[in-house]
Amino acid sequence: MDQNQLKKLVGEKSVEFVKDNMILGLGTGTTVKYMVDALGKRVQEEGLHITGVTTSERTAQQAKSLGIPLKSVDEVDHIDLTIDGSDEISSDFQGIKGGGAALLFEKIVAINSDKVMWIVDESKLSPKLGSFPLPVEVIPYGSQKVFERFEKKGLNPKFRIDPQTNERVRTDSNNYVIDLYLHEIDHPHTLAKYLISQVGVVEQGLFLDMVNTVIVGRQDGPEVIQVKR
Amino acid sequence: MDQNQLKKLVGEKSVEFVKDNMILGLGTGTTVKYMVDALGKRVQEEGLHITGVTTSERTAQQAKSLGIPLKSVDEVDHIDLTIDGSDEISSDFQGIKGGGAALLFEKIVAINSDKVMWIVDESKLSPKLGSFPLPVEVIPYGSQKVFERFEKKGLNPKFRIDPQTNERVRTDSNNYVIDLYLHEIDHPHTLAKYLISQVGVVEQGLFLDMVNTVIVGRQDGPEVIQVKR
Repeated sequence: MDQNQLKKLVGEKSVEFVKDNMILGLGTGTTVKYMVDALGKRVQEEGLHITGVTTSERTAQQAKSLGIPLKSVDEVDHIDLTIDGSDEISSDFQGIKGGGAALLFEKIVAINSDKVMWIVDESKLSPKLGSFPLPVEVIPYGSQKVFERFEKKGLNPKFRIDPQTNERVRTDSNNYVIDLYLHEIDHPHTLAKYLISQVGVVEQGLFLDMVNTVIVGRQDGPEVIQVKR
Repeated sequence: MDQNQLKKLVGEKSVEFVKDNMILGLGTGTTVKYMVDALGKRVQEEGLHITGVTTSERTAQQAKSLGIPLKSVDEVDHIDLTIDGSDEISSDFQGIKGGGAALLFEKIVAINSDKVMWIVDESKLSPKLGSFPLPVEVIPYGSQKVFERFEKKGLNPKFRIDPQTNERVRTDSNNYVIDLYLHEIDHPHTLAKYLISQVGVVEQGLFLDMVNTVIVGRQDGPEVIQVKR
């Protein structure tokens, strides 16, 4: 199976965990797109009642087109489950997210969820975090100074550029993204604390101690892993 | 002397510390307005050469109208001195800022400055921080959840409302401000760490271990205090 087939199968597998009347956080990304398709199918064919809470304009549009009712995170009193992708998952189930520049809203929805599920193809697994560049969302004013501070600290920063416009990527909150090319992250909690305390940093892409269930797309079918917390 | 006269005198006093060719961070607020007026006068009358780095649209417009050349914080390699107001200063020279909703850019400029000077009338001094409500800049998406978390923690939050429009105030970065009515802050460093690590919080108004010189408007004239760091 190619990567897209693996993603489609985990997306379909994940919606088996969705129950009637759930309030459901909907992530962002290519694997999530398959999940939302499968979810829309259950809504249309089975008359499943759910409320979706989205993490990006992209997912919101897809969900609306499939007839999934949506609310903002501020309009619901809780979220039962959030299903999202992940750009990298370590063997101790810590994650890096933000490859799609939606890390801020994804994290806001995730921390307000009772349970979090990540759906990935097997290429996203690695023993230790860091092979995926770590995204950091920064306020544009002063971002060059933040960049220089990261550089001095050896964090190997690069402003994310939109290949189509050749300009710096803007997030849904109109901020920049600086990607840190770290290769190996030895102490993710220490790094997370350092990054979030920097003036000008809005959020960073380490999602630590957050996931409850991981579904991995394997060649012989999706594997469901319950994470002990 | 009334409060405005005290502010005017400290504003004028502060520009005596400005030397030719300085790169100067320009704060925001009513006291800073007098400082920028006095600075514009020195530029026009003495031919003083300086470059201003502003912290808000308001100050930028005033500085431009007075012929003070401006650059962004990202266009200068350093800032010699930032002169700003403060909403409250404790007896150990910690501060609360953000009454004018410009705390984010003020902090970005301050932490990139070699020296920081605060200019205040004497009403801003208090033994302990907390009588001024502590401003927290938050991302609108999920801000209700942040508010509820603050409420549960007993932080007495209120969204800041624009009295003219009756809508929530928007910062220069298009975020909301939540003011925490704390009355007394016993452990400002602990509180600062807690606030900045909350997902959805962009910046908070505690300016700790940051100021080098305070000029206080007293009835018998401005008092210059050098803070030992």
